[in-house]
Amino acid sequence: MARTVGSNGPKTMEAIRKAGLKLIHEHGYEAMTLRQLAAEVGVQVGSLYNHIDTKQDLLYDLIKTHMEDLFAELAKVESKSADLGPVERLKAFIFFHVTYHILRKREVFIGASELRSLDPNHYEDIVGLRRQYEKRLMAILEDGRAQGVFQITDIAVAAYGILAMLTGVCNWFRPSGRLSREDVAQVYSDMVMRGLVPDAQLSATCTLR
Amino acid sequence: MARTVGSNGPKTMEAIRKAGLKLIHEHGYEAMTLRQLAAEVGVQVGSLYNHIDTKQDLLYDLIKTHMEDLFAELAKVESKSADLGPVERLKAFIFFHVTYHILRKREVFIGASELRSLDPNHYEDIVGLRRQYEKRLMAILEDGRAQGVFQITDIAVAAYGILAMLTGVCNWFRPSGRLSREDVAQVYSDMVMRGLVPDAQLSATCTLR
Repeated sequence: MARTVGSNGPKTMEAIRKAGLKLIHEHGYEAMTLRQLAAEVGVQVGSLYNHIDTKQDLLYDLIKTHMEDLFAELAKVESKSADLGPVERLKAFIFFHVTYHILRKREVFIGASELRSLDPNHYEDIVGLRRQYEKRLMAILEDGRAQGVFQITDIAVAAYGILAMLTGVCNWFRPSGRLSREDVAQVYSDMVMRGLVPDAQLSATCTLR
Repeated sequence: MARTVGSNGPKTMEAIRKAGLKLIHEHGYEAMTLRQLAAEVGVQVGSLYNHIDTKQDLLYDLIKTHMEDLFAELAKVESKSADLGPVERLKAFIFFHVTYHILRKREVFIGASELRSLDPNHYEDIVGLRRQYEKRLMAILEDGRAQGVFQITDIAVAAYGILAMLTGVCNWFRPSGRLSREDVAQVYSDMVMRGLVPDAQLSATCTLR
Protein backbone atom coordinates (compact mmCIF):
# COMPACT_ATOMS: atom_id res chain seq x y z
CA MET A 1 0.00 0.00 0.00
CA ALA A 2 3.05 2.29 0.22
CA ARG A 3 2.89 5.15 -2.25
CA THR A 4 5.23 8.00 -2.95
CA VAL A 5 4.38 11.32 -1.36
CA GLY A 6 4.07 12.72 -4.85
CA SER A 7 1.01 10.70 -5.78
CA ASN A 8 -0.48 10.52 -2.30
CA GLY A 9 0.24 14.05 -1.01
CA PRO A 10 -3.08 15.88 -1.38
CA LYS A 11 -5.04 12.87 -0.18
CA THR A 12 -2.85 12.45 2.91
CA MET A 13 -3.06 16.17 3.68
CA GLU A 14 -6.85 15.89 3.49
CA ALA A 15 -6.73 12.92 5.89
CA ILE A 16 -4.52 14.94 8.26
CA ARG A 17 -6.99 17.86 8.18
CA LYS A 18 -9.88 15.52 8.90
CA ALA A 19 -8.06 13.79 11.75
CA GLY A 20 -6.89 17.11 13.19
CA LEU A 21 -10.43 18.47 13.15
CA LYS A 22 -11.69 15.39 14.97
CA LEU A 23 -8.93 15.25 17.59
CA ILE A 24 -8.86 18.98 18.36
CA HIS A 25 -12.65 18.95 18.67
CA GLU A 26 -12.51 16.00 21.08
CA HIS A 27 -9.43 16.82 23.16
CA GLY A 28 -8.42 20.43 22.50
CA TYR A 29 -5.44 21.65 20.48
CA GLU A 30 -2.90 21.69 23.27
CA ALA A 31 -3.78 18.18 24.44
CA MET A 32 -3.60 16.66 20.94
CA THR A 33 -0.20 15.06 20.26
CA LEU A 34 1.35 14.49 16.84
CA ARG A 35 1.54 10.84 17.86
CA GLN A 36 -2.27 10.73 18.23
CA LEU A 37 -2.64 12.59 14.95
CA ALA A 38 -0.39 10.15 13.07
CA ALA A 39 -2.24 7.16 14.58
CA GLU A 40 -5.61 8.63 13.55
CA VAL A 41 -4.36 9.18 9.98
CA GLY A 42 -2.66 5.78 9.92
CA VAL A 43 0.88 6.98 9.17
CA GLN A 44 4.16 7.24 11.09
CA VAL A 45 4.77 10.43 13.06
CA GLY A 46 7.72 11.25 10.80
CA SER A 47 5.50 11.13 7.72
CA LEU A 48 3.38 13.99 9.06
CA TYR A 49 6.32 16.30 8.43
CA ASN A 50 6.01 15.71 4.69
CA HIS A 51 2.71 17.60 4.93
CA ILE A 52 2.80 19.97 7.90
CA ASP A 53 5.73 21.75 9.52
CA THR A 54 4.20 22.03 13.00
CA LYS A 55 1.01 21.36 14.92
CA GLN A 56 0.48 25.13 14.89
CA ASP A 57 0.51 25.12 11.07
CA LEU A 58 -2.26 22.56 11.07
CA LEU A 59 -4.44 24.57 13.45
CA TYR A 60 -3.91 27.73 11.41
CA ASP A 61 -4.63 25.84 8.18
CA LEU A 62 -7.89 24.42 9.61
CA ILE A 63 -9.23 27.76 10.82
CA LYS A 64 -7.98 29.72 7.80
CA THR A 65 -9.40 27.21 5.29
CA HIS A 66 -12.75 27.38 7.07
CA MET A 67 -12.76 31.18 6.78
CA GLU A 68 -11.66 31.15 3.12
CA ASP A 69 -14.37 28.66 2.18
CA LEU A 70 -16.88 30.80 4.05
CA PHE A 71 -15.89 33.92 2.09
CA ALA A 72 -15.98 32.04 -1.21
CA GLU A 73 -19.54 30.87 -0.56
CA LEU A 74 -20.63 34.26 0.78
CA ALA A 75 -19.34 35.91 -2.40
CA LYS A 76 -21.69 33.72 -4.47
CA VAL A 77 -24.66 34.67 -2.30
CA GLU A 78 -23.75 38.35 -2.41
CA SER A 79 -23.39 38.38 -6.19
CA LYS A 80 -26.83 36.81 -6.55
CA SER A 81 -28.49 39.33 -4.18
CA ALA A 82 -26.43 42.42 -5.09
CA ASP A 83 -29.29 44.22 -6.86
CA LEU A 84 -31.88 43.55 -4.15
CA GLY A 85 -32.90 45.77 -1.25
CA PRO A 86 -31.48 45.44 2.27
CA VAL A 87 -34.34 43.24 3.54
CA GLU A 88 -33.79 40.66 0.82
CA ARG A 89 -30.00 40.87 1.16
CA LEU A 90 -30.27 40.34 4.90
CA LYS A 91 -32.55 37.35 4.38
CA ALA A 92 -30.05 35.88 1.91
CA PHE A 93 -27.23 36.44 4.41
CA ILE A 94 -29.16 34.77 7.23
CA PHE A 95 -30.12 31.75 5.13
CA PHE A 96 -26.53 31.39 3.98
CA HIS A 97 -24.99 31.78 7.43
CA VAL A 98 -27.34 29.32 9.12
CA THR A 99 -27.33 26.60 6.47
CA TYR A 100 -23.54 26.86 6.01
CA HIS A 101 -22.56 26.68 9.67
CA ILE A 102 -25.14 24.14 10.74
CA LEU A 103 -23.16 21.45 8.86
CA ARG A 104 -19.77 22.61 10.19
CA LYS A 105 -20.14 22.24 13.95
CA ARG A 106 -16.56 21.13 14.51
CA GLU A 107 -15.02 23.94 12.46
CA VAL A 108 -17.21 26.46 14.32
CA PHE A 109 -16.29 24.96 17.69
CA ILE A 110 -12.56 25.04 16.95
CA GLY A 111 -12.74 28.50 15.39
CA ALA A 112 -14.27 29.76 18.64
CA SER A 113 -12.44 27.73 21.29
CA GLU A 114 -8.93 27.56 19.82
CA LEU A 115 -8.32 31.19 18.87
CA ARG A 116 -6.37 31.12 22.16
CA SER A 117 -3.94 28.61 20.71
CA LEU A 118 -3.00 30.54 17.56
CA ASP A 119 0.42 32.19 17.42
CA PRO A 120 0.11 36.00 17.58
CA ASN A 121 0.52 36.59 13.82
CA HIS A 122 -1.94 33.80 12.98
CA TYR A 123 -4.32 35.14 15.60
CA GLU A 124 -4.20 38.63 14.07
CA ASP A 125 -4.81 37.21 10.64
CA ILE A 126 -7.87 35.16 11.67
CA VAL A 127 -9.38 37.91 13.80
CA GLY A 128 -8.92 40.23 10.80
CA LEU A 129 -10.88 37.81 8.61
CA ARG A 130 -13.63 37.58 11.20
CA ARG A 131 -13.86 41.37 11.35
CA GLN A 132 -14.20 41.42 7.54
CA TYR A 133 -17.02 38.90 7.72
CA GLU A 134 -18.83 40.89 10.42
CA LYS A 135 -18.44 43.99 8.23
CA ARG A 136 -20.25 42.30 5.35
CA LEU A 137 -23.30 41.97 7.62
CA MET A 138 -22.84 45.46 9.05
CA ALA A 139 -22.84 46.88 5.50
CA ILE A 140 -26.31 45.41 4.90
CA LEU A 141 -27.55 46.74 8.24
CA GLU A 142 -26.06 50.22 7.55
CA ASP A 143 -27.67 50.26 4.13
CA GLY A 144 -31.07 49.30 5.55
CA ARG A 145 -30.83 51.93 8.24
CA ALA A 146 -29.78 54.62 5.74
CA GLN A 147 -32.79 53.72 3.59
CA GLY A 148 -35.04 53.96 6.65
CA VAL A 149 -36.00 50.27 6.40
CA PHE A 150 -34.17 48.97 9.49
CA GLN A 151 -34.59 50.38 12.96
CA ILE A 152 -31.19 49.80 14.62
CA THR A 153 -29.78 51.50 17.71
CA ASP A 154 -26.23 50.20 17.35
CA ILE A 155 -25.04 48.56 14.13
CA ALA A 156 -22.07 46.70 15.67
CA VAL A 157 -23.99 45.34 18.66
CA ALA A 158 -26.84 44.29 16.37
CA ALA A 159 -24.42 42.50 14.03
CA TYR A 160 -22.65 40.67 16.88
CA GLY A 161 -26.02 39.69 18.33
CA ILE A 162 -27.39 38.39 15.04
CA LEU A 163 -24.21 36.41 14.27
CA ALA A 164 -24.12 34.85 17.76
CA MET A 165 -27.77 33.87 17.48
CA LEU A 166 -27.35 32.33 14.04
CA THR A 167 -24.08 30.52 14.80
CA GLY A 168 -25.63 29.16 18.00
CA VAL A 169 -27.59 26.66 15.89
CA CYS A 170 -24.45 24.52 15.95
CA ASN A 171 -25.02 23.89 19.66
CA TRP A 172 -28.46 22.35 19.38
CA PHE A 173 -29.33 21.41 15.81
CA ARG A 174 -29.69 17.70 15.10
CA PRO A 175 -30.02 16.70 11.42
CA SER A 176 -32.44 13.95 12.52
CA GLY A 177 -34.63 16.41 14.47
CA ARG A 178 -38.06 17.76 13.58
CA LEU A 179 -36.69 20.85 11.79
CA SER A 180 -34.75 21.05 8.52
CA ARG A 181 -31.85 23.45 8.06
CA GLU A 182 -34.15 25.67 6.03
CA ASP A 183 -36.86 25.60 8.73
CA VAL A 184 -34.34 26.86 11.27
CA ALA A 185 -33.08 29.56 8.90
CA GLN A 186 -36.67 30.67 8.31
CA VAL A 187 -37.51 30.95 12.03
CA TYR A 188 -34.33 32.97 12.67
CA SER A 189 -34.86 35.11 9.59
CA ASP A 190 -38.38 35.95 10.80
CA MET A 191 -37.13 36.83 14.29
CA VAL A 192 -34.29 39.03 13.05
CA MET A 193 -36.46 40.69 10.46
CA ARG A 194 -39.19 41.53 12.94
CA GLY A 195 -36.49 42.73 15.35
CA LEU A 196 -35.16 45.25 12.83
CA VAL A 197 -38.07 46.20 10.61
CA PRO A 198 -41.10 48.06 11.98
CA ASP A 199 -44.25 46.01 11.26
CA ALA A 200 -45.89 48.39 8.85
CA GLN A 201 -42.78 48.60 6.68
CA LEU A 202 -42.29 44.85 6.70
CA SER A 203 -45.78 44.37 5.27
CA ALA A 204 -45.10 47.19 2.79
CA THR A 205 -41.88 45.50 1.71
CA CYS A 206 -43.70 42.21 1.34
CA THR A 207 -46.53 43.59 -0.75
CA LEU A 208 -44.06 45.41 -3.01
CA ARG A 209 -42.83 42.11 -4.40
CA MET B 1 3.51 30.53 56.32
CA ALA B 2 2.50 26.88 56.70
CA ARG B 3 -1.01 26.47 58.07
CA THR B 4 -3.08 23.43 58.84
CA VAL B 5 -5.60 22.38 56.22
CA GLY B 6 -8.27 22.96 58.82
CA SER B 7 -7.83 26.71 58.98
CA ASN B 8 -6.75 27.15 55.38
CA GLY B 9 -9.10 24.74 53.62
CA PRO B 10 -11.86 26.92 52.17
CA LYS B 11 -9.36 29.58 51.12
CA THR B 12 -7.14 27.02 49.38
CA MET B 13 -10.15 25.46 47.65
CA GLU B 14 -11.08 28.92 46.40
CA ALA B 15 -7.52 29.40 45.10
CA ILE B 16 -7.70 26.01 43.36
CA ARG B 17 -10.99 26.97 41.69
CA LYS B 18 -9.53 30.29 40.53
CA ALA B 19 -6.36 28.65 39.20
CA GLY B 20 -8.36 25.88 37.52
CA LEU B 21 -10.60 28.40 35.79
CA LYS B 22 -7.57 30.30 34.51
CA LEU B 23 -5.62 27.25 33.32
CA ILE B 24 -8.55 25.45 31.69
CA HIS B 25 -9.50 28.69 29.94
CA GLU B 26 -5.95 29.13 28.64
CA HIS B 27 -4.94 25.56 27.81
CA GLY B 28 -8.05 23.37 27.83
CA TYR B 29 -9.04 20.81 30.46
CA GLU B 30 -7.23 17.82 28.99
CA ALA B 31 -3.96 19.74 28.54
CA MET B 32 -3.96 21.14 32.10
CA THR B 33 -1.84 19.01 34.44
CA LEU B 34 -2.23 18.80 38.20
CA ARG B 35 1.43 19.89 38.37
CA GLN B 36 0.53 23.15 36.57
CA LEU B 37 -2.47 23.57 38.82
CA ALA B 38 -0.43 23.12 41.99
CA ALA B 39 2.22 25.57 40.73
CA GLU B 40 -0.45 28.17 39.93
CA VAL B 41 -1.96 27.78 43.42
CA GLY B 42 1.47 27.72 45.05
CA VAL B 43 1.18 24.33 46.78
CA GLN B 44 2.68 20.87 46.32
CA VAL B 45 0.83 18.50 43.96
CA GLY B 46 0.11 16.19 46.90
CA SER B 47 -1.64 19.00 48.78
CA LEU B 48 -4.23 19.30 46.00
CA TYR B 49 -5.63 15.96 47.11
CA ASN B 50 -6.66 17.47 50.44
CA HIS B 51 -9.19 19.50 48.43
CA ILE B 52 -10.07 17.66 45.23
CA ASP B 53 -10.12 13.94 44.47
CA THR B 54 -9.46 14.23 40.74
CA LYS B 55 -9.06 16.78 37.96
CA GLN B 56 -12.53 15.69 36.79
CA ASP B 57 -14.00 16.66 40.17
CA LEU B 58 -12.57 20.15 39.76
CA LEU B 59 -14.05 20.58 36.27
CA TYR B 60 -17.43 19.37 37.45
CA ASP B 61 -17.26 21.62 40.52
CA LEU B 62 -16.43 24.67 38.36
CA ILE B 63 -19.25 24.14 35.88
CA LYS B 64 -21.78 23.04 38.51
CA THR B 65 -20.99 25.97 40.83
CA HIS B 66 -21.44 28.35 37.90
CA MET B 67 -24.86 26.86 37.17
CA GLU B 68 -25.94 26.89 40.82
CA ASP B 69 -24.92 30.54 41.25
CA LEU B 70 -26.81 31.35 38.05
CA PHE B 71 -30.00 29.70 39.36
CA ALA B 72 -29.68 31.43 42.73
CA GLU B 73 -29.46 34.86 41.06
CA LEU B 74 -32.21 34.05 38.57
CA ALA B 75 -34.52 33.08 41.44
CA LYS B 76 -34.11 36.59 42.91
CA VAL B 77 -34.95 38.21 39.58
CA GLU B 78 -37.97 35.93 39.08
CA SER B 79 -39.35 36.60 42.54
CA LYS B 80 -39.14 40.36 41.92
CA SER B 81 -40.88 40.13 38.53
CA ALA B 82 -43.32 37.30 39.31
CA ASP B 83 -46.42 39.54 39.27
CA LEU B 84 -45.53 41.35 36.05
CA GLY B 85 -46.64 40.55 32.52
CA PRO B 86 -44.56 38.52 30.05
CA VAL B 87 -42.98 41.59 28.38
CA GLU B 88 -41.63 42.89 31.69
CA ARG B 89 -40.57 39.41 32.82
CA LEU B 90 -38.73 38.88 29.54
CA LYS B 91 -36.99 42.24 29.91
CA ALA B 92 -35.95 41.31 33.45
CA PHE B 93 -34.63 37.94 32.21
CA ILE B 94 -32.64 39.57 29.38
CA PHE B 95 -31.11 42.22 31.67
CA PHE B 96 -30.19 39.54 34.19
CA HIS B 97 -28.72 37.11 31.65
CA VAL B 98 -26.61 39.74 29.88
CA THR B 99 -25.27 41.55 32.93
CA TYR B 100 -24.57 38.27 34.75
CA HIS B 101 -22.70 36.51 31.96
CA ILE B 102 -20.82 39.52 30.68
CA LEU B 103 -18.62 39.41 33.81
CA ARG B 104 -18.11 35.64 33.65
CA LYS B 105 -16.43 35.11 30.30
CA ARG B 106 -14.18 32.30 31.52
CA GLU B 107 -16.99 30.35 33.18
CA VAL B 108 -19.10 30.71 30.02
CA PHE B 109 -16.20 29.64 27.80
CA ILE B 110 -15.45 26.55 29.88
CA GLY B 111 -19.14 25.70 30.27
CA ALA B 112 -19.42 25.65 26.47
CA SER B 113 -16.07 24.18 25.39
CA GLU B 114 -15.47 21.58 28.11
CA LEU B 115 -18.82 19.82 28.24
CA ARG B 116 -16.92 17.28 26.11
CA SER B 117 -14.58 16.58 29.02
CA LEU B 118 -17.22 15.78 31.64
CA ASP B 119 -17.69 12.16 32.68
CA PRO B 120 -21.04 10.80 31.41
CA ASN B 121 -22.91 11.20 34.74
CA HIS B 122 -21.53 14.71 35.24
CA TYR B 123 -22.38 15.56 31.65
CA GLU B 124 -25.99 14.42 32.12
CA ASP B 125 -26.27 16.45 35.30
CA ILE B 126 -24.97 19.68 33.72
CA VAL B 127 -26.98 19.28 30.53
CA GLY B 128 -30.04 18.73 32.73
CA LEU B 129 -29.37 22.02 34.55
CA ARG B 130 -28.97 23.83 31.24
CA ARG B 131 -32.29 22.43 30.02
CA GLN B 132 -33.91 23.71 33.22
CA TYR B 133 -32.47 27.16 32.63
CA GLU B 134 -33.69 27.18 29.02
CA LYS B 135 -37.13 26.15 30.28
CA ARG B 136 -37.31 29.20 32.57
CA LEU B 137 -37.02 31.40 29.46
CA MET B 138 -39.38 29.18 27.46
CA ALA B 139 -42.01 29.54 30.21
CA ILE B 140 -41.98 33.32 29.77
CA LEU B 141 -42.21 32.97 25.99
CA GLU B 142 -45.07 30.44 26.26
CA ASP B 143 -46.91 32.72 28.63
CA GLY B 144 -46.50 35.70 26.29
CA ARG B 145 -47.68 33.70 23.33
CA ALA B 146 -50.70 32.34 25.24
CA GLN B 147 -51.66 35.90 26.18
CA GLY B 148 -51.30 36.97 22.54
CA VAL B 149 -48.48 39.37 23.36
CA PHE B 150 -45.60 37.50 21.70
CA GLN B 151 -45.59 36.35 18.11
CA ILE B 152 -43.44 33.20 18.13
CA THR B 153 -43.29 30.45 15.51
CA ASP B 154 -41.27 27.99 17.56
CA ILE B 155 -40.74 28.48 21.30
CA ALA B 156 -37.65 26.25 21.60
CA VAL B 157 -35.86 27.68 18.56
CA ALA B 158 -36.68 31.21 19.74
CA ALA B 159 -35.32 30.46 23.22
CA TYR B 160 -32.09 28.91 21.88
CA GLY B 161 -31.65 31.88 19.54
CA ILE B 162 -32.22 34.47 22.26
CA LEU B 163 -29.86 32.72 24.69
CA ALA B 164 -27.11 32.36 22.07
CA MET B 165 -27.43 36.02 21.14
CA LEU B 166 -27.32 37.20 24.75
CA THR B 167 -24.49 34.89 25.84
CA GLY B 168 -22.51 35.96 22.76
CA VAL B 169 -21.72 39.27 24.51
CA CYS B 170 -18.91 37.38 26.26
CA ASN B 171 -17.07 37.16 22.94
CA TRP B 172 -16.85 40.87 22.22
CA PHE B 173 -17.68 42.97 25.29
CA ARG B 174 -14.81 45.01 26.75
CA PRO B 175 -15.50 46.67 30.14
CA SER B 176 -13.38 49.61 28.95
CA GLY B 177 -15.38 50.00 25.73
CA ARG B 178 -17.93 52.66 24.81
CA LEU B 179 -20.92 50.67 26.10
CA SER B 180 -21.81 49.76 29.68
CA ARG B 181 -23.25 46.36 30.60
CA GLU B 182 -26.64 48.01 30.89
CA ASP B 183 -26.31 49.67 27.46
CA VAL B 184 -25.68 46.29 25.89
CA ALA B 185 -28.59 44.69 27.76
CA GLN B 186 -30.85 47.53 26.58
CA VAL B 187 -29.88 47.15 22.90
CA TYR B 188 -30.46 43.39 23.05
CA SER B 189 -33.69 43.79 25.00
CA ASP B 190 -34.97 46.18 22.32
CA MET B 191 -34.01 43.81 19.51
CA VAL B 192 -35.56 40.75 21.13
CA MET B 193 -38.68 42.64 22.12
CA ARG B 194 -39.24 44.02 18.63
CA GLY B 195 -38.54 40.53 17.27
CA LEU B 196 -41.34 39.01 19.35
CA VAL B 197 -43.89 41.73 19.91
CA PRO B 198 -45.88 43.25 17.02
CA ASP B 199 -45.30 47.03 16.96
CA ALA B 200 -48.81 48.09 17.82
CA GLN B 201 -48.94 45.85 20.88
CA LEU B 202 -45.53 47.00 22.06
CA SER B 203 -46.73 50.62 22.09
CA ALA B 204 -49.96 49.52 23.78
CA THR B 205 -47.98 47.70 26.45
CA CYS B 206 -45.78 50.73 26.95
CA THR B 207 -48.64 53.22 27.29
CA LEU B 208 -50.41 50.93 29.77
CA ARG B 209 -47.71 51.58 32.35
